[in-house]
Amino acid sequence: MKKFINDIDTLLDESLQGFAKAHADIIQLHTQPNIVTRSTAAPASKVVLISGGGSGHEPLHTGFVGIGMLDAACPGQIFTSPTPDQMMAAAELTENGEGVLFIVKNYAGDVMNFEIASEMIDCPFETVLIDDDVSLPKNHSTGRRGVAGTLIVEKITGAAAENGMNLSDCKILGDKVNQMTASMGVALNCCTVPALGKPTFELADDEIEMGVGIHGERGHETIKLSSASEIVEQIANAINEDLKPQKGQKALLHINGLGSTPLMELHLIYNIAAQFWEKRGIDICRSLVGNYTTSLDMTGCSITLTLLDEEMIKFWDAPVNTANLRWNC
Amino acid sequence: MKKFINDIDTLLDESLQGFAKAHADIIQLHTQPNIVTRSTAAPASKVVLISGGGSGHEPLHTGFVGIGMLDAACPGQIFTSPTPDQMMAAAELTENGEGVLFIVKNYAGDVMNFEIASEMIDCPFETVLIDDDVSLPKNHSTGRRGVAGTLIVEKITGAAAENGMNLSDCKILGDKVNQMTASMGVALNCCTVPALGKPTFELADDEIEMGVGIHGERGHETIKLSSASEIVEQIANAINEDLKPQKGQKALLHINGLGSTPLMELHLIYNIAAQFWEKRGIDICRSLVGNYTTSLDMTGCSITLTLLDEEMIKFWDAPVNTANLRWNC
Repeated sequence: MKKFINDIDTLLDESLQGFAKAHADIIQLHTQPNIVTRSTAAPASKVVLISGGGSGHEPLHTGFVGIGMLDAACPGQIFTSPTPDQMMAAAELTENGEGVLFIVKNYAGDVMNFEIASEMIDCPFETVLIDDDVSLPKNHSTGRRGVAGTLIVEKITGAAAENGMNLSDCKILGDKVNQMTASMGVALNCCTVPALGKPTFELADDEIEMGVGIHGERGHETIKLSSASEIVEQIANAINEDLKPQKGQKALLHINGLGSTPLMELHLIYNIAAQFWEKRGIDICRSLVGNYTTSLDMTGCSITLTLLDEEMIKFWDAPVNTANLRWNC
Repeated sequence: MKKFINDIDTLLDESLQGFAKAHADIIQLHTQPNIVTRSTAAPASKVVLISGGGSGHEPLHTGFVGIGMLDAACPGQIFTSPTPDQMMAAAELTENGEGVLFIVKNYAGDVMNFEIASEMIDCPFETVLIDDDVSLPKNHSTGRRGVAGTLIVEKITGAAAENGMNLSDCKILGDKVNQMTASMGVALNCCTVPALGKPTFELADDEIEMGVGIHGERGHETIKLSSASEIVEQIANAINEDLKPQKGQKALLHINGLGSTPLMELHLIYNIAAQFWEKRGIDICRSLVGNYTTSLDMTGCSITLTLLDEEMIKFWDAPVNTANLRWNC
């Protein structure tokens, strides 16, 4: 295993320290337990957005703490849920009378720990559960996973909260964005978790893995490597069947790199995916291309489509100033 | 070779089309020859900044076209200089009476083609040659290479031009930023150029390459894999010996991912490098961490230090609105 590390046990803490130092104008790191909050004051009275999850998906979630997005993020160990005490401490540090909106990706450990934390905090709360991954069937035993659509929910509800939306409306909006969002991933090669020291699964030189999540787990199908157009067609069809957008529907197209895929290839994927929906009369009016929800050093990408209404567009466009998503601010 | 491509011959054009479509609010793609310009009007009268180079380094340079940075970028084929007709067309499309500042990385092909272009354009011009790579000796036969420091020159001179600085002063400022900037890279694994189909050099599982450039070429030394702290120490020492910063000096620290290195590791590198200079009394007052000057899918990173004065800080902080660098705008 070749990585830039000193010690597997201190990797996360050293990295968080570097992150905090590099972005001290935007975020603040609290330790024992690890929590990232805004370094600039949020409006005195607003719904507080808290997310978190295993580390290894950077910039998700810590890179999205700041004006117009998250108030706090709880980074767990690599690919491991944060603990309830992180979430409780995050709520205590940030809550200011308007309640907490937890944004939780649908994984058993995350769901359980956020539930424990929310039962123990002493303030109003709601939870938006993200399950945008259409590579699993809707009736899957543990439900669908939350993947790259998460940041879209964080961005849109973050802007709403910043603009004074109350807790129950933020919850309704967050659920709506999640329902209007579908994602699917593909890997050319798997990632290497530092503690394991080798890829969590192997693919032959002519194989790719369709429907991967973001934790180095297998997808739903190993297939032969094919052209970018054929790969995009397969993913876009799955997303399209799930969301069933009508002609004239406005949409956000997000091409997410899983860690090791060059921007040149992500833009090529974007081009093919945009054409897929444009041919079907969909108006791709907003875009996001880059590494936003990664899986360590996995080679691959995911495609996410979010169907937009005017409210969602307004909040997507609203100012955001975080370490890794920044505009109009 | 596993990549998201349809055809090696159309990869660049398809990617540029996707880039242009995803960022139509910021940039515009012209074809035959390929040139990326701003889609929003620049101030009516300003020095025009034009850069360019081989593709495969995205987001450099196309991702830095926009308000406060470049007016145009000329993307060559992968790791291949753009042609003089691209640069001439870029100047014709953007020049508005105040002249052109060419920002050129020091590679023989780039230098030659920008020289040919500048001899043929019919307007005042100056050229800033970037040679920030300290892995080569100062008296190297073709001079030092231009690497990740390029974007720092583009950002600072871009802001100056946007604020009305004239051509000769932009040239002086650009040269100053270049002189105050030193970079060095390290690779854990090499990149795969699509046309070649395999890594341009091989490293054993316990080897790393010090002093790599951004074109998949060997560095100055193959060494055994060591801890992140030891790797950073070696690079930072080389940079420090070149720049010889005094105690109390303000500086920008830029950790650049070469393509396949997770943000978690880049932040760890940042943490170690920041400590290196802080111990020496340097005030790391500005930071940039992420994939900005890549080498396709190379696993590795580079460290760049720029010594700052108040003018440089002012222009670094000035509004910028490009596809891949955006703040205060």
